[in-house]
Amino acid sequence: MAQPQSKDASSHARLERYRAVRTQSEALAATLSDADATAQSMPDASPAKWHLAHTSWFFEEFMLAPVYGDAVRFHPQFSFLFNSYYDAVGDRHARPMRGLLTRPPLSEVLAYRAHVDAHMTRLFDDHPEACGLLPLGLAHEQQHQELLLTDILHLFAQNPLRPALKPDVNLQTANLEAAPMSWQRFDGGTVRIGHDETGFAFDCESPAHDVILAPFELATRAVTNREWLEFIEDDGYQTPSHWLSDGFATAQSEGWTTPLYWETIDGVWHTLTLSGRQRVNLEAPVTHISFYEADAFASWAKARLPTEQEWEWAARNTLPQGTFAGSGYYQPQVQTDANKTYFYGDVWEWTASPFVPYPGYRPAAGAVGEYNGKFMSGQMVLRGGSCATPEDHIRPSYRNFFHPDKRWQFSGLRLARNV
Amino acid sequence: MAQPQSKDASSHARLERYRAVRTQSEALAATLSDADATAQSMPDASPAKWHLAHTSWFFEEFMLAPVYGDAVRFHPQFSFLFNSYYDAVGDRHARPMRGLLTRPPLSEVLAYRAHVDAHMTRLFDDHPEACGLLPLGLAHEQQHQELLLTDILHLFAQNPLRPALKPDVNLQTANLEAAPMSWQRFDGGTVRIGHDETGFAFDCESPAHDVILAPFELATRAVTNREWLEFIEDDGYQTPSHWLSDGFATAQSEGWTTPLYWETIDGVWHTLTLSGRQRVNLEAPVTHISFYEADAFASWAKARLPTEQEWEWAARNTLPQGTFAGSGYYQPQVQTDANKTYFYGDVWEWTASPFVPYPGYRPAAGAVGEYNGKFMSGQMVLRGGSCATPEDHIRPSYRNFFHPDKRWQFSGLRLARNV
Amino acid sequence: MAQPQSKDASSHARLERYRAVRTQSEALAATLSDADATAQSMPDASPAKWHLAHTSWFFEEFMLAPVYGDAVRFHPQFSFLFNSYYDAVGDRHARPMRGLLTRPPLSEVLAYRAHVDAHMTRLFDDHPEACGLLPLGLAHEQQHQELLLTDILHLFAQNPLRPALKPDVNLQTANLEAAPMSWQRFDGGTVRIGHDETGFAFDCESPAHDVILAPFELATRAVTNREWLEFIEDDGYQTPSHWLSDGFATAQSEGWTTPLYWETIDGVWHTLTLSGRQRVNLEAPVTHISFYEADAFASWAKARLPTEQEWEWAARNTLPQGTFAGSGYYQPQVQTDANKTYFYGDVWEWTASPFVPYPGYRPAAGAVGEYNGKFMSGQMVLRGGSCATPEDHIRPSYRNFFHPDKRWQFSGLRLARNV
Amino acid sequence: MAQPQSKDASSHARLERYRAVRTQSEALAATLSDADATAQSMPDASPAKWHLAHTSWFFEEFMLAPVYGDAVRFHPQFSFLFNSYYDAVGDRHARPMRGLLTRPPLSEVLAYRAHVDAHMTRLFDDHPEACGLLPLGLAHEQQHQELLLTDILHLFAQNPLRPALKPDVNLQTANLEAAPMSWQRFDGGTVRIGHDETGFAFDCESPAHDVILAPFELATRAVTNREWLEFIEDDGYQTPSHWLSDGFATAQSEGWTTPLYWETIDGVWHTLTLSGRQRVNLEAPVTHISFYEADAFASWAKARLPTEQEWEWAARNTLPQGTFAGSGYYQPQVQTDANKTYFYGDVWEWTASPFVPYPGYRPAAGAVGEYNGKFMSGQMVLRGGSCATPEDHIRPSYRNFFHPDKRWQFSGLRLARNV
Repeated sequence: MAQPQSKDASSHARLERYRAVRTQSEALAATLSDADATAQSMPDASPAKWHLAHTSWFFEEFMLAPVYGDAVRFHPQFSFLFNSYYDAVGDRHARPMRGLLTRPPLSEVLAYRAHVDAHMTRLFDDHPEACGLLPLGLAHEQQHQELLLTDILHLFAQNPLRPALKPDVNLQTANLEAAPMSWQRFDGGTVRIGHDETGFAFDCESPAHDVILAPFELATRAVTNREWLEFIEDDGYQTPSHWLSDGFATAQSEGWTTPLYWETIDGVWHTLTLSGRQRVNLEAPVTHISFYEADAFASWAKARLPTEQEWEWAARNTLPQGTFAGSGYYQPQVQTDANKTYFYGDVWEWTASPFVPYPGYRPAAGAVGEYNGKFMSGQMVLRGGSCATPEDHIRPSYRNFFHPDKRWQFSGLRLARNV
Repeated sequence: MAQPQSKDASSHARLERYRAVRTQSEALAATLSDADATAQSMPDASPAKWHLAHTSWFFEEFMLAPVYGDAVRFHPQFSFLFNSYYDAVGDRHARPMRGLLTRPPLSEVLAYRAHVDAHMTRLFDDHPEACGLLPLGLAHEQQHQELLLTDILHLFAQNPLRPALKPDVNLQTANLEAAPMSWQRFDGGTVRIGHDETGFAFDCESPAHDVILAPFELATRAVTNREWLEFIEDDGYQTPSHWLSDGFATAQSEGWTTPLYWETIDGVWHTLTLSGRQRVNLEAPVTHISFYEADAFASWAKARLPTEQEWEWAARNTLPQGTFAGSGYYQPQVQTDANKTYFYGDVWEWTASPFVPYPGYRPAAGAVGEYNGKFMSGQMVLRGGSCATPEDHIRPSYRNFFHPDKRWQFSGLRLARNV
Repeated sequence: MAQPQSKDASSHARLERYRAVRTQSEALAATLSDADATAQSMPDASPAKWHLAHTSWFFEEFMLAPVYGDAVRFHPQFSFLFNSYYDAVGDRHARPMRGLLTRPPLSEVLAYRAHVDAHMTRLFDDHPEACGLLPLGLAHEQQHQELLLTDILHLFAQNPLRPALKPDVNLQTANLEAAPMSWQRFDGGTVRIGHDETGFAFDCESPAHDVILAPFELATRAVTNREWLEFIEDDGYQTPSHWLSDGFATAQSEGWTTPLYWETIDGVWHTLTLSGRQRVNLEAPVTHISFYEADAFASWAKARLPTEQEWEWAARNTLPQGTFAGSGYYQPQVQTDANKTYFYGDVWEWTASPFVPYPGYRPAAGAVGEYNGKFMSGQMVLRGGSCATPEDHIRPSYRNFFHPDKRWQFSGLRLARNV
Repeated sequence: MAQPQSKDASSHARLERYRAVRTQSEALAATLSDADATAQSMPDASPAKWHLAHTSWFFEEFMLAPVYGDAVRFHPQFSFLFNSYYDAVGDRHARPMRGLLTRPPLSEVLAYRAHVDAHMTRLFDDHPEACGLLPLGLAHEQQHQELLLTDILHLFAQNPLRPALKPDVNLQTANLEAAPMSWQRFDGGTVRIGHDETGFAFDCESPAHDVILAPFELATRAVTNREWLEFIEDDGYQTPSHWLSDGFATAQSEGWTTPLYWETIDGVWHTLTLSGRQRVNLEAPVTHISFYEADAFASWAKARLPTEQEWEWAARNTLPQGTFAGSGYYQPQVQTDANKTYFYGDVWEWTASPFVPYPGYRPAAGAVGEYNGKFMSGQMVLRGGSCATPEDHIRPSYRNFFHPDKRWQFSGLRLARNV
């Protein structure tokens, strides 16, 4: 959580940080029309307008209303419309119906944001003691920034006109080669895992605790599209022995034969990006794959996925540098350096670990205690951040999680093996 | 079909008529935002933007392209996006995905309309001989005007903010009483049914033919909300003996206990209209009911629904006057006059007749032959037009049709009985 | 309904008739194991055991209990288990769960039948005045005899061992040729349709009434498998212009490419029969097709299906002779005679007519009034009986009905056309 | 795996053990009719006949055919019909269709068993070197013995006649009281988990490995029905804050308000057992609950579920004694002794642990490698065995696993908490 500072410096830093994050959300949506910002392409996704409103509601509900009362609220029904899943707060609009909220328009949602920003600025000055949830609120908004990008990509992928959020980026022509696939060894032993309590972290990253790791090896970079193509061409999607039982059943019923968004045009593989349809860059990390596919690939490659503990132990001393959202590419980049191990950015890496509580885990008190704990069932941990993650959002202990069949995030994999 | 006229008069009348219909479509959408015009609330409904584009595509595809070639087309992919169901024309965008087409924006669709209008104007002058499908195209556009209204109502009904297309209309305060329920007798005999070939009609209204009708009686007005409330309060929705088997199963699985859009607020029945939420006017015709409900009500009332032949025979000499879309109310009005039989406007009346071909029916030649014929299965005929129907669109032989479980049209009922 | 006779003769005839029908039901099930008689292969079908019990329950419920009271009932829960759809009688076991009733065993159901038979015999003697529903009860049992056969065929078709009810019948080797396809003309005019009230008929066949028929022609025999194969080979299943819209959607979603039960073995078409898997006899009438397929075939053949009125008028003077269940073949036979019009037996013929009430129709009083009336929605009329219909069950006015997507009955088609 | 012994002794012991297990399967099915043994009440369950055949197929496929060739097979299609999920062996009959296999009859399946038994006896004598998979085959058959019981209970629960496998057992009248709820402390530390390689174990129990456990406490007995009733009465099923998100959604959509099989009769709770409907014994362990319910209860009780490592460490020195299938009760019994910790029998205990591979896990070679590994996704571990588990089947390291929404096993829970 936020550390104590001198009031003025703290207040100023707080405001700077708050403005930087809030402004970035609006920048991401700058090229969206009212209709773009309203549509919802599947129940897993949310409209951009909803992301912009919901993140504001979080501040209104958990920071402003407790201090200023209900009078501070912008609109009496917005809590019903823009609550996501906090049961303790009350009823909420059905998730699959979010795309039918053509009103309020985007302009009114932006006005809502300005309203909340004005009151938050006031709060920083008047009630610094009531700002304890600010780091959580900002981390929350950064999570929704990433979702806004992946949700818009999914929406645009449904449109035969293939719209683009950023039409001018085309990196596929770059003439880069991926570093050769190599392995780095880690000795394991009794190692410490989890957040060390310096700086903000989500509750699910604590408490830090010791685990025993056998020696293991990790690949120094993510699996590339070229390697994935070998899996495809070796009938990987049709060979049940590579797959988990639930995974193969899902792949069959969903008709998966490639990563999400791949399509051939005149025999050449293309994919959809936030800059429109582009050729698949065979040197870049594969992305938009599910855990089931990642696991099947690893099995086919006679390797396995790393556990989240192995990943964290291996990555703990590496600075979180890599291709993040700040690059503006929104596509994983070629990992070229043979002398480096790439842990952060480009693609979230599926691990072999279900998302379960750490020993001694306790959810935060109050409604925000619903933040992570109630999702600790049926989901798998991903690590490292992606090309759509804000750079200052990630850390070695960060645990992202999705159900094993989800593919619309920038999700890829790194191989591991026993020594 | 259109009758021959002197070229100039004909060309001018054609243009006037064309402009009147086209302008009306845009007028209906005038208060819609880009997002309102994009969303699709269920697979049965279409976005307003889609209605505006599809009706234009009809002219482009069936009248402009045959004369001017593909060069006349506004956009190469619009045929794929805005074809509804004409298999002969080629592939088309999946119907339930129409609401995800956030591009083209509404403004571009309006530009598309202007483009088509300009070329149609040219066609009227240059190729009067190629205008044979104009009456069909305009009738088609009028059908979509009604659907645009009922689809927007359904969309707004999903929004807890209860938006209104026309916020200023409130007719519920009117102090009118429905005429008493009374019966008018018709002798039947061998009577002629179907379109007499003067003026335009859809292919399904022909050929005219003789049928034998036993003597029958029709109620002089539609069933009112007050009468429907008696059915509700007499456990009509819970009593299987009133219902067709498929109807009761549907009512149970869908949880129907009132017409669509009804809700209680502090014990008072309200409904959703295109002017927002309003009290149910107990004197007005009941609407937003399915065929199944209409049939169950008739059974409960110890009566039956009229056949479409009975209806047409009874109504054939009455001028199509009543509350149509031109009134701007978009709500059924109280039928007050005890000395009149109300046949037209207010609510479409479900009949007892499945939508099947008349003896000797032949679909029109070419792709427009798909217009009606392929829907002659599983749907029921409705007669008379509604408060959302353009006034000059209706005639005694007009056959509307929907599946028996549909409720989002302005559909009601009139009782009939044997003598 | 049954005609008055001298008491003894009437009583004796009644008993003979009763015994003949009841014995036949048990004969059909004679080769079934307890498990065969218990399983339910789809919600549309019922277990053989259920057919045997339900038909007995009909007599118990509607004839015995009103006279002798509840003490006459064999088991207190059988009314709950073996009521089919009579809402007026009370709750009933969920239809899709019938196959899980492993108890009572078949032997107990047979004991139930004997119990009912004994009391019915007593009733004939003691209460001839209470036997008015006997013809209905026997006609009802005959309907279930046909369903028992088609349901068992459907069950056995799910078993890779391909069991047979009658393993020894193989008619496919017969060297018969179908009569050439020819047309018979009927002049139409004002004709009388419906049951003439001599002998038993279901309520839906009445009242007799006049209709006007234009001149028409009927094919003299049913469409054969050879002709159907031409439709298949001409891409009939893949060409939407032949199909009703609902029909094509169903064919696509269900993956229909042949009639039900067809499969190729080494390039040769086979089908499943109650005598096991046999080669498709190309000369025999096609069967196990839906209304949607029949309609598409007729459209492809530039013809149409007859209306039920045309069929009845054409067939009214022909004796109901043909291949019925009594033949023991349970397969449609080759219609060889060029000098004859085949109206009865072999395959039920889909008509173009939805199953709706005749003008002036009134359901029978009491619970048996649910027999037909509540199904008058969404179903199509079939005429003529099939190779699984008891011979004395059929008559010119007989109206069978099924939903347009059903294929497990012995259903085929005859072509018609306008003159 | 089986240990080497002198040939005769080994051969004899092998035969004795084989016969004991095989005979027990048939004993369990002794009161089932052919129909009982054929029906399948849901896709998760299998027919008793299928269990009897599939376990025999396992020996035929993996032990007999490799030695004697295909000539040893009883029937050419049984491999297709009775393979469960071994993709390496070939195609198989669709799982949800197993209940439609009315043939082969139960009698033929028993003949199949006798055929396999005869050849297995020969194998023991002639090819002792080829008997390595015998322990696996017998453990496999014991697993299906338990499933046969739980599947039959589920089937009988669908029948309003409430059949019973063992009608004469009624333990609910017993006047026993559960021991008071108390906690036993365990210090944890670095502890060894997994099978120690003495005697048979499944591959998923290996390799043994060290883990670090924080100190913890376990309840000394399972949660009782009385305690569960408190949860129900405190609105436990309706309070989302107790539940995992996926769990609450499942509970709502499935309408869960009690454990499976509970129903009230005149206000008294009853449940279905293999001895028919009986009053819920409030002192006995609760059973037929899902993981989601177990987790919600623990949360409501301000405790948690134990991890599988905590459970195994705590139970490792306790002999596997308790109420198993051999008791013939097939119902969990009251755990009365306050001086004892009950680890085995009565009910499987849901743990907090997803079923994932142990570090260094390798599936067995060949098709039997599909036994466990491919299910290591989306399922939760249960420990300790139940009243339907064969007594000699269980051990401290035994890992059972089911999806978190399954309720038809004898599954209950024990509470744990941090110190």
